[in-house]
Amino acid sequence: MKLTVNKDQLNGSIQQVSKAISSRTAIPILSGIKIEANEQGITLTASDTDISIQSTIPPHQGDVELFTLEQEGAVVLPAKFFVDIIRKLPEDSVEIEVKDGFQTMIRSGLSEIQLVGMDAEEYPVLPSLDAKETVLMQSDLLKTMIRQTILAVSTHESTPILTGVLFTIQDEQIKLTATDRHRLATREASIRNEEGTQFKNIVISGKNLNELQKLLPDQDTLIEVIRADNQVLFNLGSVLFFTRVLDGLYPDTSKIIPQAYKTEMVVPAKPFLSAMDRVNLLSREERTNIVKMATLDDGKIEISSSSSELGKITEQLDVPSISGEPLKISFNSRYMLDALKTIDSEWIHLGFTGAMSPIIVKPKDETFLLHLILPYRTTG
Amino acid sequence: MKLTVNKDQLNGSIQQVSKAISSRTAIPILSGIKIEANEQGITLTASDTDISIQSTIPPHQGDVELFTLEQEGAVVLPAKFFVDIIRKLPEDSVEIEVKDGFQTMIRSGLSEIQLVGMDAEEYPVLPSLDAKETVLMQSDLLKTMIRQTILAVSTHESTPILTGVLFTIQDEQIKLTATDRHRLATREASIRNEEGTQFKNIVISGKNLNELQKLLPDQDTLIEVIRADNQVLFNLGSVLFFTRVLDGLYPDTSKIIPQAYKTEMVVPAKPFLSAMDRVNLLSREERTNIVKMATLDDGKIEISSSSSELGKITEQLDVPSISGEPLKISFNSRYMLDALKTIDSEWIHLGFTGAMSPIIVKPKDETFLLHLILPYRTTG
Repeated sequence: MKLTVNKDQLNGSIQQVSKAISSRTAIPILSGIKIEANEQGITLTASDTDISIQSTIPPHQGDVELFTLEQEGAVVLPAKFFVDIIRKLPEDSVEIEVKDGFQTMIRSGLSEIQLVGMDAEEYPVLPSLDAKETVLMQSDLLKTMIRQTILAVSTHESTPILTGVLFTIQDEQIKLTATDRHRLATREASIRNEEGTQFKNIVISGKNLNELQKLLPDQDTLIEVIRADNQVLFNLGSVLFFTRVLDGLYPDTSKIIPQAYKTEMVVPAKPFLSAMDRVNLLSREERTNIVKMATLDDGKIEISSSSSELGKITEQLDVPSISGEPLKISFNSRYMLDALKTIDSEWIHLGFTGAMSPIIVKPKDETFLLHLILPYRTTG
Repeated sequence: MKLTVNKDQLNGSIQQVSKAISSRTAIPILSGIKIEANEQGITLTASDTDISIQSTIPPHQGDVELFTLEQEGAVVLPAKFFVDIIRKLPEDSVEIEVKDGFQTMIRSGLSEIQLVGMDAEEYPVLPSLDAKETVLMQSDLLKTMIRQTILAVSTHESTPILTGVLFTIQDEQIKLTATDRHRLATREASIRNEEGTQFKNIVISGKNLNELQKLLPDQDTLIEVIRADNQVLFNLGSVLFFTRVLDGLYPDTSKIIPQAYKTEMVVPAKPFLSAMDRVNLLSREERTNIVKMATLDDGKIEISSSSSELGKITEQLDVPSISGEPLKISFNSRYMLDALKTIDSEWIHLGFTGAMSPIIVKPKDETFLLHLILPYRTTG
């Protein structure tokens, strides 16, 4: 392999795949980045077996040549040093030449680096894909859906299946669900599904979705979501993101969402979020994050928290619309804050089904996004 | 105490003093911020006994009234929650009222916070100052001088006196010195010293200077440096910064600075820094940070480093001026990088006194700033 490539392009691709590099791996070759070069492009691959990321530099971008190839080939280079050095090279172009025994020379200006490379033949092969199991969706929509549900995944490794987000695809509908047994988040949307692909019990770890989220372009470009054995591939164009699917059966959450409320109200999103933010400052000092909420007689609600050591905070809020029974409830201020931050609407609909029963948090007049929070069982 | 104060002003003062709050202190009252209000201003004080910071909000800023006072007084409020909540209050003004038993009410819009306050009488008194031991200097100059020397302080608690920077003042000269026995940095400057103040063996911990640096205004305002018993006070105008002086005798470093060189060269600052930065990437992987430097025959120098595991990096640099003996030396790339980053000059003067003797790094044609680095004793 011998080529000259634009430094910024190479660096961009390295940054994209670097999230998948294993820093502590039992498989030495996975501590490297695989580089393959031919006339079609330069392809970089990194994998920690849980996720694999592939990024391709095409020969041209518009009229601009991104690399010149003297000799095809492949090599695996140690990621640790390679990732940092490329960014700091003195010139705009970088020459890479693989010699005998995978010794690799990198040259730029008066800098010369000799790297101990590894045999690309020994690098694991990425799963093959069945193009029949493909749906198309907007990149920014998927990004938003992940942001709106990922907060509710469990962080406890004792229930591995709940550390992931459930992807359900049926007809032209996609639904993401996450729950840690104390709260639940669901988000639905329409997609293009020409082949009638079904996703049932496909659960992807929150950690992996967090990495995917960073790679998803913000523009409304179409991306492909493809199922392959126990993997899902997100095809973002020049970047392929493979993730393993979690083992196990995701619990049925459809029955815990209440269909009727005892108390309902519509609150202004920003003042409610900012009051909750202040109350949470004190409630988190007590570790339990307990906050109390009650309806007052004059169309207001009161939110409060107290700490035996520090003091008390009381917030009042004008609520334009309240109906049903008077309310007195306690819940986790952190859960409410997390939910509120995912709602981009001006008004929030809160539904209560009793002091010991689920609280529903939704954008007003919308059903595509729903947060459920279980209240605390407190006295007084 | 009862007053109404501009939120941003109060928050600004809180941020200034908050660096001195003890998070884990044996003296409970030091976990709080002391607030004193009278017609002259609202004064906030925080202290961890090592440093103490005081910030005063004046009654007016130009034509703008910054606070209105209903009743003078003082209280100590728990910093933990207070620091965060003020920033997040809903309105631009904040009402603070101290009631019986130091219970303090904070009100802003529909937010009401009740804080468990403490008796300000129990707060430690700051040291009294002898105005005769005062010098005047530019704020931005002191900031630069700290930045240029602090890198060389020792991080080993086994030699406490070397964890500080030595301040020497004699006539109209101030000098800062720091050394960890492997490297040394000194910076000199002129100041106004009308009272003939002398600073001898005044050593201030690098940690404390780091906090001071953040508070020093960038503009060329004049600040006062005042000695008081075992403390030094930096008077920044609305902010007073007290720091304890380290116990012990600072070693005499004057004799280790060589007066003549065996090899001298002038190198371009940016290319040299950037080559050293790349070489350091590899040398740090070996933990020792060893880098080799040698003069070549054609007016170039070569800088290199190698790692048995990863490979080798070689940098060449055109050097316009070299004189004296050919050179082959090894040193710590981190030390050289740290020194180079403090020099704001276009050209750097490097002076060598032999493979086993000190390296001198200075801005070209200047003597006010000097870095000394001891080389590694390596073979080959």
